[in-house]
Amino acid sequence: MGTPIRIGIVGYGNLGRGVEAAVSHNADMALMGVFTRRNPAELNPARADTTVFAYDALTEHHDSIDVLVLCGGSKEDLPQQGPELAARFNIVDSFDTHARIPEYFAAVDGAAHEASTTALISTGWDPGLFSINRVMGESLLPEGDTYTFWGRGLSQGHSDAIRRVPGVAGGVQYTIPSDEAIDSVRSGLRPPLTTQQKHTRECYVVLQDGADADAVRAAIVTMPHYFADYNTTVSFISDDELRRDHADMPHGGTVIRSGSTSHGKRQTIEFGLQLGSNPEFTASVLVAYARAVHRMGAQGQYGAKTVFDVPPGLLSPRSAAQLRAELL
Amino acid sequence: MGTPIRIGIVGYGNLGRGVEAAVSHNADMALMGVFTRRNPAELNPARADTTVFAYDALTEHHDSIDVLVLCGGSKEDLPQQGPELAARFNIVDSFDTHARIPEYFAAVDGAAHEASTTALISTGWDPGLFSINRVMGESLLPEGDTYTFWGRGLSQGHSDAIRRVPGVAGGVQYTIPSDEAIDSVRSGLRPPLTTQQKHTRECYVVLQDGADADAVRAAIVTMPHYFADYNTTVSFISDDELRRDHADMPHGGTVIRSGSTSHGKRQTIEFGLQLGSNPEFTASVLVAYARAVHRMGAQGQYGAKTVFDVPPGLLSPRSAAQLRAELL
Repeated sequence: MGTPIRIGIVGYGNLGRGVEAAVSHNADMALMGVFTRRNPAELNPARADTTVFAYDALTEHHDSIDVLVLCGGSKEDLPQQGPELAARFNIVDSFDTHARIPEYFAAVDGAAHEASTTALISTGWDPGLFSINRVMGESLLPEGDTYTFWGRGLSQGHSDAIRRVPGVAGGVQYTIPSDEAIDSVRSGLRPPLTTQQKHTRECYVVLQDGADADAVRAAIVTMPHYFADYNTTVSFISDDELRRDHADMPHGGTVIRSGSTSHGKRQTIEFGLQLGSNPEFTASVLVAYARAVHRMGAQGQYGAKTVFDVPPGLLSPRSAAQLRAELL
Repeated sequence: MGTPIRIGIVGYGNLGRGVEAAVSHNADMALMGVFTRRNPAELNPARADTTVFAYDALTEHHDSIDVLVLCGGSKEDLPQQGPELAARFNIVDSFDTHARIPEYFAAVDGAAHEASTTALISTGWDPGLFSINRVMGESLLPEGDTYTFWGRGLSQGHSDAIRRVPGVAGGVQYTIPSDEAIDSVRSGLRPPLTTQQKHTRECYVVLQDGADADAVRAAIVTMPHYFADYNTTVSFISDDELRRDHADMPHGGTVIRSGSTSHGKRQTIEFGLQLGSNPEFTASVLVAYARAVHRMGAQGQYGAKTVFDVPPGLLSPRSAAQLRAELL
């Protein structure tokens, strides 16, 4: 394998833990450490051989890290850390505030070009793999429509909304793609579908002692924006059931391009994910793209990049000749 | 849009006709002509504005063509035409003899480097899109297994085998992926599956007058290599039914990567195609990659390439900034 690709992790929540695990599955990579703005002594990494450093210690590790994987949030952390760290390191991140991507790209691009680093932003599965499939779908079938379905998956925002309802002690919400909608898209009919028509919402709720179940259900299913426009079901469960059956963070979804070529011939391209753990899968994507970033940096391809700029072969530990012989 | 990308088609069978149609769906492209080794006067192109030239006239069109799309066969045509034409033009082809890809790549690569052209070989859906998904699957989920299912689709080789059986006047064979096998893969169990266990075969046969149906059925289902090891069904139909119901060339299939991240969390990536016309879809893929080849050539990326070398954004008529703002 030669010299391993030396990875640093910035931030140690669910995503950072996923990156720690993913690096261990890739024989051509080595984890140099986790960098945190918390007190390093208070962090308890999942793997015994993981070293934890203070964020400020990054300066001293400049020469021992090939790619930093940024695992902070898109709202508070990345807008500051992305440009700041791209000015010193090759980076990969999962910036996912769609509307602010052009602005964030420009800030990271400036820093990376000045420092001759390579900075891949906004990877993961959406934005990320789903984005690739949206672009390829419309490029391969210009006459067509693209449909993105999300789920079955735990939605953090909707779970938070449930927990704010008076009488609710705890709860989670799953976004479910509508089977009818998916079937109608797969049939090639190219139906016009709203987000509401494409998805239903399943809520699992723990009541506070003495709360009125009917009132709680009504409050949830009529909540504007979050639930009112959706087919929403509410099931009441115990606190034990919530902890036992709803601790995972599954997610997934499907991107379908339905189009036609000549003579109305129907053609369908479908890309789907069923994820047992959303953060662990996102972390696996970040780590494969860290390999590509390392290689693009070595080739002198500096500046900000997105998944649209990355040839798929660069994600693989195999050589180009191996890929052609073994996987083409 | 600026100056259109000027496309030439070499060879005019089902694939060449598909390219002719696909170019017309892409506003940033213009078809400069079809080049054939048959008598140009005897070719009857599907579109009235398509001009047909003799293959040897390619020499005169050197300066008026940006990318040639080679639509010949992998056995007889491409091994000669690929290197020969890459020495004068940017090319795209669908060379699909898996075992000979390294050798073919080397021959085209030498010619293309010497001539400073860009030559994308072996694109389409398999090899092509399926190959990309095999590489991405194992790169994103190193702990896992990859499964490729083909169908429901018309297999030319198996249809030919049926037609050689004594007593058969005509017939077609569809390869069908096994629902049980796909379900067991989707469940995350990572079952070991042979090609036979993954597929069944459906035959539609027209008998010659006086032929013995039972004998024909027995001859088909026991035919070594082609059918004996598969669950094979034979249905007898009329000549009219054959022409009416089995004239299309549907195909498709699915690539599934089933893997796990930490703590045995199951993760599944699935890419599937349902194609109303196999040659027309393959043609659409070739045309999108012709756009990428034109751009890579303009960037000075010379030599032979495969789908593994092409950033997905280059397939799209949109600019990189548009893609980031609109599709990421």
